[in-house]
Amino acid sequence: MSVLVVGSVALDSVETPFGKADEVIGGSGTFFAASASHFTPVQLVGVVGNDYPVDKLEPLRARHVDLSGLERAEGESFRWRGRYRHDLNAAETLETRLGVFSQFRPKIPQAFRQAPFVFLANIDPRLQLEVLKQVERPRLVACDTMNFWIESRRSDLIELMKHVDVLLLNDGEARQLTEHNNLVKAARWILDRGPKYVVIKKGEHGAFMFTASTVFFAPAYPLEDVFDPTGAGDSFAGGFIGYLAQRGKLDEAHFRRAVVYGSTMGSFAVERFSIQRLLEIGPDDIRKRLDAFRQLVAFEEDMPA
Amino acid sequence: MSVLVVGSVALDSVETPFGKADEVIGGSGTFFAASASHFTPVQLVGVVGNDYPVDKLEPLRARHVDLSGLERAEGESFRWRGRYRHDLNAAETLETRLGVFSQFRPKIPQAFRQAPFVFLANIDPRLQLEVLKQVERPRLVACDTMNFWIESRRSDLIELMKHVDVLLLNDGEARQLTEHNNLVKAARWILDRGPKYVVIKKGEHGAFMFTASTVFFAPAYPLEDVFDPTGAGDSFAGGFIGYLAQRGKLDEAHFRRAVVYGSTMGSFAVERFSIQRLLEIGPDDIRKRLDAFRQLVAFEEDMPA
Repeated sequence: MSVLVVGSVALDSVETPFGKADEVIGGSGTFFAASASHFTPVQLVGVVGNDYPVDKLEPLRARHVDLSGLERAEGESFRWRGRYRHDLNAAETLETRLGVFSQFRPKIPQAFRQAPFVFLANIDPRLQLEVLKQVERPRLVACDTMNFWIESRRSDLIELMKHVDVLLLNDGEARQLTEHNNLVKAARWILDRGPKYVVIKKGEHGAFMFTASTVFFAPAYPLEDVFDPTGAGDSFAGGFIGYLAQRGKLDEAHFRRAVVYGSTMGSFAVERFSIQRLLEIGPDDIRKRLDAFRQLVAFEEDMPA
Repeated sequence: MSVLVVGSVALDSVETPFGKADEVIGGSGTFFAASASHFTPVQLVGVVGNDYPVDKLEPLRARHVDLSGLERAEGESFRWRGRYRHDLNAAETLETRLGVFSQFRPKIPQAFRQAPFVFLANIDPRLQLEVLKQVERPRLVACDTMNFWIESRRSDLIELMKHVDVLLLNDGEARQLTEHNNLVKAARWILDRGPKYVVIKKGEHGAFMFTASTVFFAPAYPLEDVFDPTGAGDSFAGGFIGYLAQRGKLDEAHFRRAVVYGSTMGSFAVERFSIQRLLEIGPDDIRKRLDAFRQLVAFEEDMPA
């Protein structure tokens, strides 16, 4: 089944301890699409300026990412410039230029309105709500958010949560949103407000998935070289939703595996700048890393003493 | 099989967001013993001053902790005063009074010298080396350390590592010791210097165990109420070594389960002040939490798409 994603399509300039990249393909919608396309067809809705190197998105189109919902507007594309120092968990934003993204009003093409799976990447919750008005009863709606919207659009975000099945956010955002320092309490706060699943991502420390009655944890894969963490969270979401959409089953067993596929795709994303690594890998790489994840946490049943 | 532990026996005064405790039973040797005693007989070697409320150690003796190696010296007992704010991962030391501990020279009683399992809790690496000279070819030697010794006794610590099978330390210490920010690289650095197993504890973020060819990860149990993190690391070590000593088998499968038993015991320790919770629990509580750990990371094999 196909996944509709609405998010940013940006140009990133990133500095890490390992190198620099200038004006490379980025944005939450882009990373999500590159990741999810390993599992299922993706429909991407976003906006770029007329300065965007759209030819660089061709590899996505070749991977069954439908770009017909990508609007080209007069003006500059969304640009983000950031830096990571030795703590690769914390991005330092040096510059954000919204450009045409500041006027973005998502228009879901008729052909996308029946998408069974919808991912609302990190944009203004008011726009996320507008997207939901344009789609027809998807089987699963997941969304992401960020500190900026938690501060400035809190009531819209809480309204949005009523209409969302899965909320994905990082630990800092969960604490900020819920005002609970403890993640178990934070998760319960969120589950009380709509979502049936809450995925709390902790970067290099892995990810929790909470439901009303269960909790699941998957570590991040212990990579020797984390090259550039940009896009890890959206790649996680792409693996998570992409896998669920591929299988079309929404039981706990599939959701648990979805978290592991999310971690898997996140672990690839950080191995190169931009979506480069996500474009290089194939089913064999994904299968091998998934096996490595299984080995990482596997312990056999104990015999009585 | 019994475990010999050499470490501190202290009086802790702790302040957390949830309450205060004054001059309660603490110390690395004490927490280790309270935890390991759930699995196997423990022999504790340490020192207290003549002001120590040794009667409060009676519950340990009742749990098969042999206290005959606990020296009573003229002077004040080791006292630690600390505070945790909302980030329960970081203790703030307000006061350390070494007292008789500053003159501690461990003397291993004759009856303990053939202990098959030895845990060198966090003390001066020179003393840890002296302990090893007094014991007769144990089957397994594990040790802990801390930032203070990494700074002040670096060469002794590196000498010690040659004689140790398992090094347990936290992520900050691993980075400090190895000068590698990446934990995979840090672990390899350590494995190159003697230990066959390195356990890197990340507090609420779980623990990694590395060998030359494998890596295992166990999350920390997501508790709703972490009451007091003091002693979590030593309780982890107690579950880890205690379990291995109980089973007497040193293969990878047992080491993996040992990490989970370590996490289990650490998760109990933080539920109350001091060793209180470790004294309350029984085999059923441990079994239930171990099952909860298994559930926490369990995901079924995937069927082909």
